[in-house]
Amino acid sequence: MSNTFGELFRVTTFGESHGPAVGGVIDGCPPGITLDLAAITTELERRRTAQSKLVSQRNEPDELEILSGVFEGVTTGTPLAFLIRNKDHNPGAYDHLKDLYRPSHADYTYQAKYGVRDHRGGGRTSARETTSRVVAGAIAKQFLASAAGVDILSWVHSVSNIEASISATNQTELLAVTRDQVEANDIRCPDPSTAEAMIAAIDKARQNGDSLGGTIVARATGLPAGLGEPVFDRLEATLAKAMLSLPATKGFEIGSGFTGTQMSGSEHNDPYFTDKDGIVKTTTNYSGGTQGGITNGEPLYFRVAFKPTATISKKQTTTTVDGESVELEAKGRHDPCVLPRAVPIVEAMTALVLADHYLLNKALGA
Amino acid sequence: MSNTFGELFRVTTFGESHGPAVGGVIDGCPPGITLDLAAITTELERRRTAQSKLVSQRNEPDELEILSGVFEGVTTGTPLAFLIRNKDHNPGAYDHLKDLYRPSHADYTYQAKYGVRDHRGGGRTSARETTSRVVAGAIAKQFLASAAGVDILSWVHSVSNIEASISATNQTELLAVTRDQVEANDIRCPDPSTAEAMIAAIDKARQNGDSLGGTIVARATGLPAGLGEPVFDRLEATLAKAMLSLPATKGFEIGSGFTGTQMSGSEHNDPYFTDKDGIVKTTTNYSGGTQGGITNGEPLYFRVAFKPTATISKKQTTTTVDGESVELEAKGRHDPCVLPRAVPIVEAMTALVLADHYLLNKALGA
Amino acid sequence: MSNTFGELFRVTTFGESHGPAVGGVIDGCPPGITLDLAAITTELERRRTAQSKLVSQRNEPDELEILSGVFEGVTTGTPLAFLIRNKDHNPGAYDHLKDLYRPSHADYTYQAKYGVRDHRGGGRTSARETTSRVVAGAIAKQFLASAAGVDILSWVHSVSNIEASISATNQTELLAVTRDQVEANDIRCPDPSTAEAMIAAIDKARQNGDSLGGTIVARATGLPAGLGEPVFDRLEATLAKAMLSLPATKGFEIGSGFTGTQMSGSEHNDPYFTDKDGIVKTTTNYSGGTQGGITNGEPLYFRVAFKPTATISKKQTTTTVDGESVELEAKGRHDPCVLPRAVPIVEAMTALVLADHYLLNKALGA
Amino acid sequence: MSNTFGELFRVTTFGESHGPAVGGVIDGCPPGITLDLAAITTELERRRTAQSKLVSQRNEPDELEILSGVFEGVTTGTPLAFLIRNKDHNPGAYDHLKDLYRPSHADYTYQAKYGVRDHRGGGRTSARETTSRVVAGAIAKQFLASAAGVDILSWVHSVSNIEASISATNQTELLAVTRDQVEANDIRCPDPSTAEAMIAAIDKARQNGDSLGGTIVARATGLPAGLGEPVFDRLEATLAKAMLSLPATKGFEIGSGFTGTQMSGSEHNDPYFTDKDGIVKTTTNYSGGTQGGITNGEPLYFRVAFKPTATISKKQTTTTVDGESVELEAKGRHDPCVLPRAVPIVEAMTALVLADHYLLNKALGA
Repeated sequence: MSNTFGELFRVTTFGESHGPAVGGVIDGCPPGITLDLAAITTELERRRTAQSKLVSQRNEPDELEILSGVFEGVTTGTPLAFLIRNKDHNPGAYDHLKDLYRPSHADYTYQAKYGVRDHRGGGRTSARETTSRVVAGAIAKQFLASAAGVDILSWVHSVSNIEASISATNQTELLAVTRDQVEANDIRCPDPSTAEAMIAAIDKARQNGDSLGGTIVARATGLPAGLGEPVFDRLEATLAKAMLSLPATKGFEIGSGFTGTQMSGSEHNDPYFTDKDGIVKTTTNYSGGTQGGITNGEPLYFRVAFKPTATISKKQTTTTVDGESVELEAKGRHDPCVLPRAVPIVEAMTALVLADHYLLNKALGA
Repeated sequence: MSNTFGELFRVTTFGESHGPAVGGVIDGCPPGITLDLAAITTELERRRTAQSKLVSQRNEPDELEILSGVFEGVTTGTPLAFLIRNKDHNPGAYDHLKDLYRPSHADYTYQAKYGVRDHRGGGRTSARETTSRVVAGAIAKQFLASAAGVDILSWVHSVSNIEASISATNQTELLAVTRDQVEANDIRCPDPSTAEAMIAAIDKARQNGDSLGGTIVARATGLPAGLGEPVFDRLEATLAKAMLSLPATKGFEIGSGFTGTQMSGSEHNDPYFTDKDGIVKTTTNYSGGTQGGITNGEPLYFRVAFKPTATISKKQTTTTVDGESVELEAKGRHDPCVLPRAVPIVEAMTALVLADHYLLNKALGA
Repeated sequence: MSNTFGELFRVTTFGESHGPAVGGVIDGCPPGITLDLAAITTELERRRTAQSKLVSQRNEPDELEILSGVFEGVTTGTPLAFLIRNKDHNPGAYDHLKDLYRPSHADYTYQAKYGVRDHRGGGRTSARETTSRVVAGAIAKQFLASAAGVDILSWVHSVSNIEASISATNQTELLAVTRDQVEANDIRCPDPSTAEAMIAAIDKARQNGDSLGGTIVARATGLPAGLGEPVFDRLEATLAKAMLSLPATKGFEIGSGFTGTQMSGSEHNDPYFTDKDGIVKTTTNYSGGTQGGITNGEPLYFRVAFKPTATISKKQTTTTVDGESVELEAKGRHDPCVLPRAVPIVEAMTALVLADHYLLNKALGA
Repeated sequence: MSNTFGELFRVTTFGESHGPAVGGVIDGCPPGITLDLAAITTELERRRTAQSKLVSQRNEPDELEILSGVFEGVTTGTPLAFLIRNKDHNPGAYDHLKDLYRPSHADYTYQAKYGVRDHRGGGRTSARETTSRVVAGAIAKQFLASAAGVDILSWVHSVSNIEASISATNQTELLAVTRDQVEANDIRCPDPSTAEAMIAAIDKARQNGDSLGGTIVARATGLPAGLGEPVFDRLEATLAKAMLSLPATKGFEIGSGFTGTQMSGSEHNDPYFTDKDGIVKTTTNYSGGTQGGITNGEPLYFRVAFKPTATISKKQTTTTVDGESVELEAKGRHDPCVLPRAVPIVEAMTALVLADHYLLNKALGA
């Protein structure tokens, strides 16, 4: 519900951008996992601001404290709570936003829903909230890797109208991408020449006080067949929910996605065969790794659309809470493009979905 | 969980394609709604097979029986259970499918997950399951209309590469579509000339033993500001889950969607103004009706991608459960294109999402 | 929520006393169970009215129809829906109750909560609702027996102030009771001479137009250590909820219960030892089979208090919905004592709790 | 699930006795509540150790830090997270307990379930966990008081075989008890002479290295009719779960409880009347404030049984993890009787149950 995600591997997050801390509680984290704290920190670093000129210059050290659920480095099966203090904040910096509604932000909708809001840096609606998701997702990744050998990787596929030359639906191309390629540049696009063009476009937008959107591709390999709980908790349904729960997302597509709607059934169907080890496989994978909402053992892949960042420096018109029309020029630190920082967040949410389905299948499968 | 959808307005569905019945239970249906049974039947008729040559010729009368939760025509607040008997079934017709896995169907994944499956007509994985959703959605529609004046309408936007001339993102064009226009042709596309082209394409695919996919646009108007429960149960997250829980769906996008990723922030942001009645509104609506996962009072609109139907008559290669390669020619009744029948299903799921969020906001909003 | 019980082995029930049917849906019923329908029918028979002069003479054949989730006699992992038609009803018989609130019934509270109610035979508040629980519980019993060798038995321990000579807390005595002893008499008390006294007391109450209450003991053996999900879903917490969700219940106690509050810690603590097979056991079992909310492998036992039936024939004072004071003499069929029919219901709820915890532990335990 | 309580007013707790902190997250805390922090601290003080010689001498200052969900002293509708650092701990003090299972503690069951455990001071199974419940409950109390004028009070009714002279079922006597009377002595029994006897008995048990149990009465007034969600989430069912989720509880009874099973229906039924203001009331209240699981507007009252504390200093026999029989003499700080400290915890859980049902009824009632 609301600030909890998952049925069995359940994460509850909390925290406002300029409150004391952000954090979360994982209830249902399996016991006996030897946590690799450095790996969690690496994921936080990937999400962090101030990594490059492409992203917000808010400088948060993001020191993780684990409060419970771990004993002598090993998870105990009890709730694993963690927090990260908010340090680099200057609440007064937001005073000019207290009485107006920033365009395409949630200022107005929170006010309409709750009758009260923490306006400082967007409060709960800030992308800072995703810090908690990254921590929980990093733990889910470790669980999935140790329990089932699952590997999750995502990267920037497009920024504005600049698209990587690596196909987002061709399985051979998708499987060839490596983590090193993704991490080789600031934009996290494994196609180096496109990466450069993307960076240039973002830099230009930043100079114009404007922002850009784009798409991310995600891939998971090593999945056993059987994950997904139809009919409502199909794997792709839960993934779609996970992705659309991220700030700034506008779309989700799995396998052939929207493009696949232009194919015929005879082109789109993935023929089955049994390989020499007796494993059932498909020769193509337009399905994207699931059928009927359940993994078939093929790689899972999907794409997520992110709108251009709503916070821009260009002058904009809006209304005050008193109904007056005003002009607004943003002064806070912000990202001209959220895509590179969204990469680890997409991976984190993917891991949370898969960890949850893994446990559900353990209980409910044959 | 799994076969239950919603937190407060909760629907649990059951039933296999060739079992005795399909049906469901609505727990959390508000008391005091005078049910319009004819309106529910109309929705069932819209979903039903054998309406035109575009869809499966399975001829199910779909007689609805309400088993509980209604007294003297009025909902009582207790669980509203309903069922529809499966009548036109010939189980023996599926014997040839018992021992093989149809391409891009869930035969293999159900077997892998549960170790057992009802192979007759796809069992639980049949689109017949959506009958229950349509009934529950029709009741949710009545609740939303009476409680808040909400109206939900959807239509076919594209079939294969044939696209309606009505924009899927321009609010003026979206708001001009009427229910009569949608229901005026077999394909449920409000643009008559495109509708004809779509019908011709589907007819051709049917003759070739092939199938086509497409996209559906959905729109909801009359929504109050405040619906949606961030951070994980954002309205668009729940909608995305609802849509990707439907058979054959491959994608979801809200507002500007994937196309919006190519806009700049200054183009994409929706400026706020306060109208003469003191209502906060936006001049554009690239957001699609929500910000921060909460409705802002503007119309809600989104699109759903449906792959081409997996059941085709053309010869295909697959594997038997014993690992032998075989050729398969489908003999059952099926839809060369699910789009026209999917229209009421998309509306039903939209209604279920909105009814649930309406109740959640009643409890958790200011 | 509300009409759903369980997290993974989830049962949703529906139905009013004088509506078309009662029934339910089990979502999360594990696949591969070969259902013994005769055993389910036996449980329904035990719950059924008109078995003896001790209970209501409403004569319901209680024919069970399974609507989904079973294929060739085996559960498939998909929702298992079932219904039982209401047959012996005469709605007009309740017209005199339409406009008044029967003492200690839920007529008033349903009216206050929902603003509308089905007054016929108590509607949803009728004990007829428990029929659905018995069916679901019978299936849960079969699952528990086959998966883990669990056996559940309950019996009447007291009626009014007449108490069985078999201790409700002494483990040796509790373990000696057999199902045959319980079923040997109409009151389901395994102590034959006390059973006779109970039957005589109930018969006398019936003749006086009055009713009696009593207590039931329940016992489960064969449980593995590890069932229970602290801190809020402790096994005894879920059991207490299950029991207090039954009509007419007023109390629950596990192990030493209320009496145990008068013992000292040194008397009450259950010393551990490791037996020759290396199994950890306790020499006493005042705990009742759990510690910290988790089973320790010892027998589980607890007691449930049932108030005297609220429906009596004696004249009573109450108020009409219009605020007039009236005298009421019940005319419907009713039970002078619910205890014998409650025995299978207590067993059913115990089975539902244990089946759910069994699946939860499968997912969340080591 | 597990460490989360409630459907809408949801509390997730975390923390081990000797880990860095205990705390929790309230998701669903209504917006707009001006928090009285001093009142929360008062409740923490009531639960705290080292208040008197009757309770454990562990000296925890219990400083509360609120991490989110409150802005300028007012709740915002976003998750309200809080923590309390564990300060007075000496982990080494528990080394001798690492390899054995204390009688009637959860050492063995946690090991059996999770394969790993934090043995220091009982880890998650320590009553220190209830600190989080008290904080959340104090906030729920403030919500209930401001939204509906609800007042919750509980007190010690019996210690061992020493029972207060104030009836636990007579409504007049129950309603006469004041908070000042309860807080007037260390044992929190509003009957001063009995209180003295209780204190003497506990002191004697402490000197003997032994412990005592007892019962607590709880009362809630000012409740509107309509709270409770049948059939499974009846108010008394949720209360029973809440109480049996507390460490050391063995029983729950509402209204007439176990004693009421010895009454006849004509004695037990609560006659209705309509008072001069048109309010429906009952002349007696054996029901304890609910009928059919829904409040009827009368005071709610119930009792909870607590076993004697499992931690005693007397020598006891147990087994090591390696199967050796050993003698154990507890050295840690502990309570010879948990009853006085349990009073605020029972109130807290009552508040959590009522706050949740209040919100559920807001959404699902008429």
